[in-house]
Amino acid sequence: MNSFLLTFLLSALTATALFAQPENLMPVPSEIKPGQDRFLLTSDFSCSISGTDQSRVLPAVSRLLKRLSKMTTLTFDPDTVLTPVQTPSLQISFQRAGKLTPGESESYQLNITRNSISLSAETDLGILHGLETLYQLTERSSAGFFFRSVSISDSPRFPWRGLMLDVCRHFFTAETVKRQIDAMSLVKLNVLHLHLSEDQGFRIESKTYPKLHELGSNGQYFTQDEMRDLIRYADLRGIRVMPEFDMPGHTTAWMAGYPELGSVPGPVKPEKRYGIFGSTMNPAKPETYTFLDTFLTEMSGLFPDEYFHIGGDENNGEQWDANPDIQKFKTENNLATNHDLQAYFNGKILDILTRNGKKMMGWDEIYQPSLPRNIVIHSWRGRDYMENSARDGYRSVLSNGYYIDLFYPAEKHYLNDPVPAASTLTDTEKARILGGEATMWAELVDEETLDMRIWPRTAAIAERLWSPGSVTDPDEMYRRLPEITRRLEETGLNPVTNRDKMLRRLAGTDQIQALKTLLNAVEPIEGYKRHSTKPGYTTFSPFSRGVDCALSDAPDVIKARLLIRNYKKTGSAAALAELTGLADAWISTGPKIKKLAESSPAVRELVPLAGSVSRLGVLFKSRLKAFASGKTTGETKAKETEIASLSKPVAELEPVIARLFDELKNHPAKK
Amino acid sequence: MNSFLLTFLLSALTATALFAQPENLMPVPSEIKPGQDRFLLTSDFSCSISGTDQSRVLPAVSRLLKRLSKMTTLTFDPDTVLTPVQTPSLQISFQRAGKLTPGESESYQLNITRNSISLSAETDLGILHGLETLYQLTERSSAGFFFRSVSISDSPRFPWRGLMLDVCRHFFTAETVKRQIDAMSLVKLNVLHLHLSEDQGFRIESKTYPKLHELGSNGQYFTQDEMRDLIRYADLRGIRVMPEFDMPGHTTAWMAGYPELGSVPGPVKPEKRYGIFGSTMNPAKPETYTFLDTFLTEMSGLFPDEYFHIGGDENNGEQWDANPDIQKFKTENNLATNHDLQAYFNGKILDILTRNGKKMMGWDEIYQPSLPRNIVIHSWRGRDYMENSARDGYRSVLSNGYYIDLFYPAEKHYLNDPVPAASTLTDTEKARILGGEATMWAELVDEETLDMRIWPRTAAIAERLWSPGSVTDPDEMYRRLPEITRRLEETGLNPVTNRDKMLRRLAGTDQIQALKTLLNAVEPIEGYKRHSTKPGYTTFSPFSRGVDCALSDAPDVIKARLLIRNYKKTGSAAALAELTGLADAWISTGPKIKKLAESSPAVRELVPLAGSVSRLGVLFKSRLKAFASGKTTGETKAKETEIASLSKPVAELEPVIARLFDELKNHPAKK
Repeated sequence: MNSFLLTFLLSALTATALFAQPENLMPVPSEIKPGQDRFLLTSDFSCSISGTDQSRVLPAVSRLLKRLSKMTTLTFDPDTVLTPVQTPSLQISFQRAGKLTPGESESYQLNITRNSISLSAETDLGILHGLETLYQLTERSSAGFFFRSVSISDSPRFPWRGLMLDVCRHFFTAETVKRQIDAMSLVKLNVLHLHLSEDQGFRIESKTYPKLHELGSNGQYFTQDEMRDLIRYADLRGIRVMPEFDMPGHTTAWMAGYPELGSVPGPVKPEKRYGIFGSTMNPAKPETYTFLDTFLTEMSGLFPDEYFHIGGDENNGEQWDANPDIQKFKTENNLATNHDLQAYFNGKILDILTRNGKKMMGWDEIYQPSLPRNIVIHSWRGRDYMENSARDGYRSVLSNGYYIDLFYPAEKHYLNDPVPAASTLTDTEKARILGGEATMWAELVDEETLDMRIWPRTAAIAERLWSPGSVTDPDEMYRRLPEITRRLEETGLNPVTNRDKMLRRLAGTDQIQALKTLLNAVEPIEGYKRHSTKPGYTTFSPFSRGVDCALSDAPDVIKARLLIRNYKKTGSAAALAELTGLADAWISTGPKIKKLAESSPAVRELVPLAGSVSRLGVLFKSRLKAFASGKTTGETKAKETEIASLSKPVAELEPVIARLFDELKNHPAKK
Repeated sequence: MNSFLLTFLLSALTATALFAQPENLMPVPSEIKPGQDRFLLTSDFSCSISGTDQSRVLPAVSRLLKRLSKMTTLTFDPDTVLTPVQTPSLQISFQRAGKLTPGESESYQLNITRNSISLSAETDLGILHGLETLYQLTERSSAGFFFRSVSISDSPRFPWRGLMLDVCRHFFTAETVKRQIDAMSLVKLNVLHLHLSEDQGFRIESKTYPKLHELGSNGQYFTQDEMRDLIRYADLRGIRVMPEFDMPGHTTAWMAGYPELGSVPGPVKPEKRYGIFGSTMNPAKPETYTFLDTFLTEMSGLFPDEYFHIGGDENNGEQWDANPDIQKFKTENNLATNHDLQAYFNGKILDILTRNGKKMMGWDEIYQPSLPRNIVIHSWRGRDYMENSARDGYRSVLSNGYYIDLFYPAEKHYLNDPVPAASTLTDTEKARILGGEATMWAELVDEETLDMRIWPRTAAIAERLWSPGSVTDPDEMYRRLPEITRRLEETGLNPVTNRDKMLRRLAGTDQIQALKTLLNAVEPIEGYKRHSTKPGYTTFSPFSRGVDCALSDAPDVIKARLLIRNYKKTGSAAALAELTGLADAWISTGPKIKKLAESSPAVRELVPLAGSVSRLGVLFKSRLKAFASGKTTGETKAKETEIASLSKPVAELEPVIARLFDELKNHPAKK
């Protein structure tokens, strides 16, 4: 009943949310002028393309037609649709093929009238974005599927809009990565950053040093053929693929095949546990650089992107301190600290990459004034690293605040602006901030949960990086999130389906409604808290518990918050009734989960949680009643203590209903 | 509410169906003796393996552990589980690695006691089957996950238990094919027959004739690397991969790259429409055999299986008749009919295959007494072809009656025994019948619907081919089908999730319950009826309509039938109440679908269907009431006419509620 309610309520709130509309676009375009007419989508839909190199646009039109076919159940055979006619329904024109490089033109103009659609752009990349906008604009009515007439002129705020995917802690198949590329394309992201080496795995075939993937991957890696195919797949969607090889730390998996690279003697195996293990390359041996020269030259040939990420994070220096040769090397080369030594190492890598025509990028640890200004600093520890880099003449990309592996709600990421209105940087410095990347570290995620951990939250980040800085209303973002989730699902992602599947397995039955009610009211504990649980996660942990089925934006609590705000604005009796319904569902979850746990052992750990949610439901219902009758004060001290106590995490899950009590404090004048 | 009801009801009916039990196994083992104890599955589970070549068993144990981990949420790291201990929980022992050839030993013995599990077999293939049985035996209780103590001695009835997958009319990715292999392994099928060439597509990379896949596939084909990987994947699961290249007919896609192979001049493109197109290789040119010699030699090297399928079906002879050279060739070689000419062609192919160490197989058109007795006849047009072949000394495999693309209910396939009790064949002749293959022709199925079109019905066929011939009760099969569906989902298949996703897209909202109620009461029209609709399907048709979300076993009608039979046996008031609830749901579907269609254009075609279901619901409820009050007669003539009229197909869907009326005719003595 809850997902039913969610859709129903959100549509009740907005009167328009049920079907896509210009105001449902994500990301929001820079300029949009709605019209009054409708373009009706019929089976005689036709399309013309004018532009020299159509190698990206033609398949993009085919993909759009396929999705429209599936949605409308009309047959759109590309051969038929593209057969020349006098006045094509959709006229596409562009000047030239875009280069996949930051700053390339990605803008487009889309104009929909009653009788025709025109989409124009300088580059084919703009056309790709315009086609995705068009897809998001599809609406339904009793008369059929249609596009509302509209005039859109759109271009991105930042040139670097990325998703970093860690394929090392858990591996993801090429097909799964392609799905992420499809989703990125839907929300106009343009950089897929693949984190390819780690303590837990080395994930790309090397022909020059085959023991890297043979002994470092447990058999799970991309072949070079697969990677070329992935890169081509991304290119066709206007998305760059940037490789990362994390060095000199986080390198246990390299040493499995080549222990001589290490600062301490081997042998080692890829790690199964998580954390910082200290495994570090030996920067004092010339052989290390010979190895890296050959290897990085090989990889520079495989990955056509001009940027090359060398990681560089979390080298704790322990292995360097313990190795007398390395200490001696430091002294001989006047390298006072390990940071200096790492800068020396980075300089050597930079030479190799430069020789291969690459621009070097690294996590903010590589920021060191001795390095030239054409490297890119990737800020993860704090936005001050980014801002300092910008002042110091370096370009940078922000990931601090976009760590989607840490279970924070979409709102937190959404409000994290790389260049906020209050920024004290000069315009020149601001221009050095290229954009941002959502980072999906993969300790606590696997094939099954990946889609729902990345999406839809990354759509909110995509909007932050594409749309004007003035687009900042989280409620408005949350209103559109279910709509983009449906689009994601239509595009092939599984944020909804996999969750249902997991709930059925957890419950051992198709009767998952009680479990869904519970898990829609709670959120996984945030930050690194799940990492510090006992006995601790490994690469073999099953990510199939209640916490793995919970979302970082508890859907029913988000829904309740929107309902309360609506009620406060409009006094809507329907909103109040729905809120009461939600409270009743929460109240009922305790006994239901207890019953389910009798036959579903994996549900047992959720029984105390369900008890808390039940009791919070009772308190919420009573607070709601008081509020509706005009009582605007808060809770008693005793109640507040009880609420705080009920909100304590259980089984790595936090009941977040308490957040709603604050919303019920200041009753506006009753209408 | 309906899937909830389904589970609830089936469990109410059997009191045990909710969780897996020995009596829920599919296929049913040949011998099973249940015990009284339980083996509790805990995190200190351990395993020992004794057997020389563990290359199949080790990964199989890992796969089992992964699924058990996911289900139980306990961590089973294979390294830990396989660490030697004094008394391992699971002791596996086998003699030797099995050969993937029909007739190889696949039997196993599984013995579960309170404290230990032993699994033994002659070959590792038996162990693989035993591990899947063990997985299916997992149960849940308040005390945790457990296996009921049991003693099983199991072996297959037929050595050839296959699934044929047409990857030509629609292409399926390697990942999708691997999913089918996983499912086959779950239900003990052992042959994946890949139909690799057709009028609509040529789906394997050829290094000797690259234009075959380059011009014949629209870019959708398996590379040889992918195919080797697939074959290895299947081998690890004890499954043979047999290729089929359909010749001399059904060959349009070959001619796209090599028109000189054809009996009429080119150029041609791969077909988009379906049917028999007459495109046929030219059997009169020596160059044809030179080409096929090179190509089939290449493919014989790629596919290690000893059997090689040459198709041979549906050559209508039109192109041969129209070609004077071919007519002349027939005369010169004393070939009276086109059938004789095809036998000549087959003889040439047989020579090539024999030289490559292959045994030839083909559809029953190739049956021709001039061919040697070591070929295998694949019966599709009728079981008489199989029986005649058997009498004539040929071995054969049955697919007639297993055409799962034709939307027949599981029961029809289930009752189709290759060697029924009443068979008039001698024992020697019977032994020539190797088994059967479910055939998934792919005109009306795509990536999204494949899993739900193949499964769970193919599990019923798998049971027919594995279990003793005495296991024949369809109700008992239908009782277990939801359970095996849950296992299939846990194993990675999407028969449930994809359907929900499709329903959300069709409805344009998450509120899919009304649509589900309607589509759970109807079935796609059967046989070739969907092929004759206007304007006709093509490879670009969207398979996203109501009919594509409907199942060949309407779940609520099956459920109602089981409930009625239960009610007739037990007089259960609960069963009666549930039946009334179903009737009420059917009654309500008319107005609900009408409302939904106002905003969901793709639903409009279902409105009249929902009207029929509504009215059938009214009639069913009234009949049910009469029946419950002891009236055992049938309907009036007028009512019967109305029911027949309401049961007419709409939008390629048949309301099958009428089938239940017959069940309500003979009321047993009231208790």
